[in-house]
Amino acid sequence: MNALGRHLVADFHGCTADLNNPDVVLRALEQACEVAGATIISRTGFNFSPYGVTSVVVIAESHLAVHTWPEYGYAAVDLFTCGTSVDTWRAFEFVKSAFGATRVEVKEMPRGILSQNEMAQANAYSPILSRPAAA
Amino acid sequence: MNALGRHLVADFHGCTADLNNPDVVLRALEQACEVAGATIISRTGFNFSPYGVTSVVVIAESHLAVHTWPEYGYAAVDLFTCGTSVDTWRAFEFVKSAFGATRVEVKEMPRGILSQNEMAQANAYSPILSRPAAA
Repeated sequence: MNALGRHLVADFHGCTADLNNPDVVLRALEQACEVAGATIISRTGFNFSPYGVTSVVVIAESHLAVHTWPEYGYAAVDLFTCGTSVDTWRAFEFVKSAFGATRVEVKEMPRGILSQNEMAQANAYSPILSRPAAA
Repeated sequence: MNALGRHLVADFHGCTADLNNPDVVLRALEQACEVAGATIISRTGFNFSPYGVTSVVVIAESHLAVHTWPEYGYAAVDLFTCGTSVDTWRAFEFVKSAFGATRVEVKEMPRGILSQNEMAQANAYSPILSRPAAA
């Protein structure tokens, strides 16, 4: 399958970790990157009042995102990677454990399944506009 | 269905927009927020060399994320919202049009489908740690 990315869409229920603590949530993502071999580029997030944390980590291989509903013991976790160097499932297992999830629903979704024509198109590609190189 | 969030997982192929231009990508997300009624909290992203743009917009209602492979005319687009005030499908239509996608695969995924027990749990919830209110 000519997929460009792998996306794990995970719903973690019955979490025992403090999902209202932004440090707990961000640290889980950072450590998941470490164990999975992902390279962190930037972090952003938001703390809701009274409950809820959003944490997003952009990685060189795509992104990881978490939204928590602590009052329900629930975290929506997205682990999107591309390339072959990152072990996405290892990141999944790490976050699952860090959050103490007791009921899990997860789907692995291949992203960007190319047709033969779309694959061939790359050979003829040249950027329309010049732009700065990677920061 | 007691879902906390709505997540549109979209693969946009055959895009005619300049997916290598970070301004084009970010502007599409910002305008999608505007037409869909989402509130932007923060933006982050990355420009790859020689090709590819990552753009993530954290919104009060969750997040929007795009990763592009301009050489394949492909954009992976995630539109994740919660609550009832944002029209997620309107955001989808906007980005699809802005990118000039000619082949689209999209799945709507309900996120955080709660059991009766999990719903009841919220009544007994109190945060483990105090933390700052929303910024």
